[in-house]
Amino acid sequence: MVALVDRIETEIAPIEVAVFNIGANVQFPITETTSRVYRKVWEMACFAGFLMGREVAGRMLERGHGTIIFTGATASTRGRERLAAFAGAKHALRALAQSMARELGPQNIHVAHTIIDGAIDSNFIREMVPDVDDKRAADAILNPDHIAQNYVMLHKQPRTAWTHELDLRPWKETW
Amino acid sequence: MVALVDRIETEIAPIEVAVFNIGANVQFPITETTSRVYRKVWEMACFAGFLMGREVAGRMLERGHGTIIFTGATASTRGRERLAAFAGAKHALRALAQSMARELGPQNIHVAHTIIDGAIDSNFIREMVPDVDDKRAADAILNPDHIAQNYVMLHKQPRTAWTHELDLRPWKETW
Amino acid sequence: MVALVDRIETEIAPIEVAVFNIGANVQFPITETTSRVYRKVWEMACFAGFLMGREVAGRMLERGHGTIIFTGATASTRGRERLAAFAGAKHALRALAQSMARELGPQNIHVAHTIIDGAIDSNFIREMVPDVDDKRAADAILNPDHIAQNYVMLHKQPRTAWTHELDLRPWKETW
Amino acid sequence: MVALVDRIETEIAPIEVAVFNIGANVQFPITETTSRVYRKVWEMACFAGFLMGREVAGRMLERGHGTIIFTGATASTRGRERLAAFAGAKHALRALAQSMARELGPQNIHVAHTIIDGAIDSNFIREMVPDVDDKRAADAILNPDHIAQNYVMLHKQPRTAWTHELDLRPWKETW
Repeated sequence: MVALVDRIETEIAPIEVAVFNIGANVQFPITETTSRVYRKVWEMACFAGFLMGREVAGRMLERGHGTIIFTGATASTRGRERLAAFAGAKHALRALAQSMARELGPQNIHVAHTIIDGAIDSNFIREMVPDVDDKRAADAILNPDHIAQNYVMLHKQPRTAWTHELDLRPWKETW
Repeated sequence: MVALVDRIETEIAPIEVAVFNIGANVQFPITETTSRVYRKVWEMACFAGFLMGREVAGRMLERGHGTIIFTGATASTRGRERLAAFAGAKHALRALAQSMARELGPQNIHVAHTIIDGAIDSNFIREMVPDVDDKRAADAILNPDHIAQNYVMLHKQPRTAWTHELDLRPWKETW
Repeated sequence: MVALVDRIETEIAPIEVAVFNIGANVQFPITETTSRVYRKVWEMACFAGFLMGREVAGRMLERGHGTIIFTGATASTRGRERLAAFAGAKHALRALAQSMARELGPQNIHVAHTIIDGAIDSNFIREMVPDVDDKRAADAILNPDHIAQNYVMLHKQPRTAWTHELDLRPWKETW
Repeated sequence: MVALVDRIETEIAPIEVAVFNIGANVQFPITETTSRVYRKVWEMACFAGFLMGREVAGRMLERGHGTIIFTGATASTRGRERLAAFAGAKHALRALAQSMARELGPQNIHVAHTIIDGAIDSNFIREMVPDVDDKRAADAILNPDHIAQNYVMLHKQPRTAWTHELDLRPWKETW
């Protein structure tokens, strides 16, 4: 991650907006959750976000501006059965986002955390959800373009009124 | 409120977006909070919102669409000393917004609740806060136009990705 | 309430522990919730608690000690469909408990809020729940004596380690 | 941890109550938080708790009863500036406790999470806090014996009324 951020900044452009999206939604009973799974889920869904956030924050602080968005889920605020690993990583990512927002906000870096509460219309979901076409037709599944529009909106918010946490869910979703 | 909504619908236009904004931020030690104050704060900051929400929801349900936004505050999620009346009303308004969102969302009515965490640049604040000009110059006070832009954004959100709760605070605010 | 507290203090004894228990769990769609219902539910489940808390707090402050416990429910932290009135009153009661705890704790008055998450084995439930005997046999319904033991425990907590919020639910309850 | 639980169960006795207490309250600005620190804090304050919880849960499930208590802190529910590592680990531990409670509760294993909100009267604090004697005299610092009494209470709770989350703070603590 250190090398990646360095390369983007050097070869492409200064990072104005960084979005951390990685999920790792696996489910196991607690006694069948291996140490490897528990650690890998945390590394993917949390530790990688810490590395990205830290590396990008350093560059943005030098320039005095920037936006960092961490993508959360329902499991960011609630630990369900069979979800100890995933909910743990997502809770920790949310704590990271809050800590960074409180520290970096007054230094003009906008740190936000989203809570995506529903399935996203993606290749992964199209294989997993049998009635995905019906759901898409009914607007009952999150459209990635609409998520993206909200992220652009967060980046463009004037700094007299910044949002830290934004939940997004389809209108028909039960919550 | 019944008559008001009726009149707007009859004489002006169907209500597409309804915003409930009324505050009542008074502070008293618990033993000096009169029954009159406790009740009036609830009537202004919560009961009036219930009446507005109920009346508007009925019309929107007939038409099958609409947006209702309730304005909350830091006291919506936290009860501080000397704030029993105000925090109570704001907590109850938040419960109203959540209940309505869960009930009306699947009927295509978007119900949202905002948490305004900071002073708003208004006549009231301009009289109360001595250094308001410095704060405005530093973007350290919420600009009402920027709040309004966020409300318009909520109204325009596609229904695959609706936000229920949106916090808004100046970048320099401690929270 | 003013007269009641006065009479208890004068004719019976100084109030060492006050418990506010009144519920009002009614359910209506938002558009069928009358102003009378919305107001009455708040008066029963919240305003009465405010009056009790304020009157008792005044006496306890004079004596420099005491315990006040407010009984909450799942609806204290979550607004469900059809529950705008009840959830509103319960949220407001929780805000009252928090405000009072922050104000009165440092004056040696212990203010606590419980979250009872499940049916209580009572006359009311015995009429409403058909399989109450099976549930009781399985410890799957809250025993009022066990709730009472927890309230006594709260009253007896040494003040280096006071609890403000205590959830209580049967082991088999889904949450 | 696997070996430790095995040895205790084999050489000493079946584990009836397991308590996970390990803290790691270090503070750094986000850009000065090394990967090593971020990982070590998570390993100590969260991963070790996962290992303990998983190993003990397996034994308790075989026997059909037991109590597991995880010790949390204010940082379990709030991410403060300079606390990304510690708050992350504590948030993840809380998610673990919630997931395990929802999964194991209906199998007669009582899983609880405490939120210790204040300094504990310990060797560590006695070196760090200059006015510790004054605080102890004023009951303004958590007494470890009183914390222990609350843990014993959690273990002894009848299963019709189990507590999942218990906050403990000195009466004079600001929160």
